[in-house]
Amino acid sequence: MSDSPFVLYVDARHVSPYAMSAFVALTEKGVPFTTRLVDLRAAAHRAPDYLRDSLTGRVPTLSHADFHLSESSAIAEYLEELLPAPGYRALYPQGRQARARARQIQAWLRSDLGALREARPTTAVFGAPLTTPLTDAAHGDAERLCAFVEAILPVGATQLFDEWSIADTDLALMLQRLLNSGDATPSAVAAFARAQWQRPSVQAWLALPRPAQF
Amino acid sequence: MSDSPFVLYVDARHVSPYAMSAFVALTEKGVPFTTRLVDLRAAAHRAPDYLRDSLTGRVPTLSHADFHLSESSAIAEYLEELLPAPGYRALYPQGRQARARARQIQAWLRSDLGALREARPTTAVFGAPLTTPLTDAAHGDAERLCAFVEAILPVGATQLFDEWSIADTDLALMLQRLLNSGDATPSAVAAFARAQWQRPSVQAWLALPRPAQF
Repeated sequence: MSDSPFVLYVDARHVSPYAMSAFVALTEKGVPFTTRLVDLRAAAHRAPDYLRDSLTGRVPTLSHADFHLSESSAIAEYLEELLPAPGYRALYPQGRQARARARQIQAWLRSDLGALREARPTTAVFGAPLTTPLTDAAHGDAERLCAFVEAILPVGATQLFDEWSIADTDLALMLQRLLNSGDATPSAVAAFARAQWQRPSVQAWLALPRPAQF
Repeated sequence: MSDSPFVLYVDARHVSPYAMSAFVALTEKGVPFTTRLVDLRAAAHRAPDYLRDSLTGRVPTLSHADFHLSESSAIAEYLEELLPAPGYRALYPQGRQARARARQIQAWLRSDLGALREARPTTAVFGAPLTTPLTDAAHGDAERLCAFVEAILPVGATQLFDEWSIADTDLALMLQRLLNSGDATPSAVAAFARAQWQRPSVQAWLALPRPAQF
């Protein structure tokens, strides 16, 4: 693995949903890669070397030889172009409209639903559930999230499109914020998220070491 | 224009930076389109018809015949695939690494720099400047933003890549939050943003009607 050109910088506690997304994307492509840990609580993302490469201090960052790229959705698009289907597993749907929808989902999950993300942080996905009730705003986010999934998920399906895509993983992570803390979720929506959570690339992320308590 | 298959739903006050991004993208492609106004203060984005098409209630939404797509970065990618260069103006760089960087910028601007976005909302870009000082957090965001531009902008250039891209417009909008309120900005960074602001597609957005006061 040490001579792989791919190095993925992820948060040291393995709780970033965006680090997980990039980790799953790389794992699905089936290329060897090295993971390096960035200790966000020690401000390692503000260290000069990391700032120089990431440009923004964000996690994850992918290094591919001497090219460095941050933002998990941009990393997925880059990997898709560099390692395209059918030689490698596709991260995005092949149809133009489905591909557009997958991108909509990725962009939406990264820029909306802030109240839900705050009320149910990923420490309560990868660690112990929270028992505090959802705030009204978080509840509103949860309703919009579940209504969205119900609107686009085909009846009985456990993935959004004809083939798996990285948007499935990203959406499942957002839903796990609800599921892991026992918040009400429509059964078809829960079944989708639980099925996606079993995917080997996701299980590989879940198997990484984490603090016993966050 | 009325029989164009493209309809773009934008916020009625014309202050959404993401509506602007999609408007510029469509304008650059040179295809006729109709604009429809969504009155966010009257909660028109929560109306059943708009929710049905946008799926998330977000602005902007592009309707292309019977396909509906929200999230401005997904809209730009869709237009790029539907109306590709060289027949139409490219929205993204042609080189793989530059294209990845443009996507990184779009994703970053939509999911980070929240303190700056709060301290300098776009009402103070498209309307009167603010005189309140930046908060410490907003100042930190401004420093990261300007450091990023200084790191990637070629010396003397007023665009990021060999050709214009939609990332230039998105980045210039973020910088105008500082410029329009007189906040300190390195001269090369300011020159980039001011040059991008003169682009006809941006000027077309600026020329749209807005309330005298927000």
